[in-house]
Amino acid sequence: MLNMEKLVDAITKEISALLASGNFPIVVGVSNRHVHLSREHTDILFGEGYELTKMRDLRQPGEFAAKETVTVATAGGVLENVRILGPIRKKTQFELSASDARKLRIDVPVVKSGSSHELESPVLLIGPKGSVSLTEGVGLAWRHIHLSPEEALALGVKDGQEVDVEVKGDRGVIFRKVWVRVSDKFVSEFHVDVDEANACGLKTGDYVQIVRIPESL
Amino acid sequence: MLNMEKLVDAITKEISALLASGNFPIVVGVSNRHVHLSREHTDILFGEGYELTKMRDLRQPGEFAAKETVTVATAGGVLENVRILGPIRKKTQFELSASDARKLRIDVPVVKSGSSHELESPVLLIGPKGSVSLTEGVGLAWRHIHLSPEEALALGVKDGQEVDVEVKGDRGVIFRKVWVRVSDKFVSEFHVDVDEANACGLKTGDYVQIVRIPESL
Repeated sequence: MLNMEKLVDAITKEISALLASGNFPIVVGVSNRHVHLSREHTDILFGEGYELTKMRDLRQPGEFAAKETVTVATAGGVLENVRILGPIRKKTQFELSASDARKLRIDVPVVKSGSSHELESPVLLIGPKGSVSLTEGVGLAWRHIHLSPEEALALGVKDGQEVDVEVKGDRGVIFRKVWVRVSDKFVSEFHVDVDEANACGLKTGDYVQIVRIPESL
Repeated sequence: MLNMEKLVDAITKEISALLASGNFPIVVGVSNRHVHLSREHTDILFGEGYELTKMRDLRQPGEFAAKETVTVATAGGVLENVRILGPIRKKTQFELSASDARKLRIDVPVVKSGSSHELESPVLLIGPKGSVSLTEGVGLAWRHIHLSPEEALALGVKDGQEVDVEVKGDRGVIFRKVWVRVSDKFVSEFHVDVDEANACGLKTGDYVQIVRIPESL
């Protein structure tokens, strides 16, 4: 018979050892194209005072995938059923992959969340009640790791730092310049987009580790 | 006034130095989904004795993109206008990206060219004169470097070896397990698929370098 107490103790020790080693594995979250909406744009797209409906919780506390979607359109192409992620934010953001950008025939930079970039031609968000024309807040997400302050401490990394992350397997890669974001609102998660996940066979729920690459190779 | 002779001499020296350094840059070729056809399958799809029409030469000597395309279909999805690459080969091969595989709703492995894998459900190639049902020869290409024997010697690598390749930039990555293929029919070229290129912002004509990563990170 299994002694539950002993088992729990063994698992706790295992986890503590991993944490103490300063390099515990980080769970992967693959981000498909999505939109974060401001209050003003939610009103325009879905109606005055509209509240987003939660479909499922995301790993980051308080964040959720909403039932609501929008159509994204440019002069060059269309993406249908683009998921809204809640809750409401200060600024509207549309995060897409390089292959999405190709479908829309727009040229977008890799951006760190919060940074701004002026688009040459507008991107339209189309909802059931109205549409919004975006000329900023559109970009490929700079791949990043969310960490709580405790996790950052254990890993020996700081908010804003860039680190290297290794993915094992036949399509093994080391992602360089992975942006570290530390907040007491975060829990550990490595965010990549669909192109990045496809390139190395990563799936949501997989685990990766930070590695230290010598400065000169 | 520029002295052409001196200029040529300076450039030659520069190139020689790079080659001698054992680590010259390798040009990138991004492969979109494509089909290589056997004689038998060309006959079925395009008619008895049909000869492929060259649209443009590829970097590898003798290889070309043909004007001809096929439709690729499964029970789960369709890809139209899939380019044929010539010349005719011994076996038919369909090389696609992970995002293509998702569109076709098939599960395909990462394969080294020439290796075989049995599919669970068939993939149809549809041409103007007939169709072919494939149950093997379908896969994601294992990323690889083509090299001439002289280039392999300069780089200190051997046919069949796996090396690490670094891509610089905001989306910098190190691709691990890059397969080295050496033949006197090849010239240096680093082949990745569209997903891999999108993941790190690579384009055909860019340059990358082999790097040496310590065994334990």
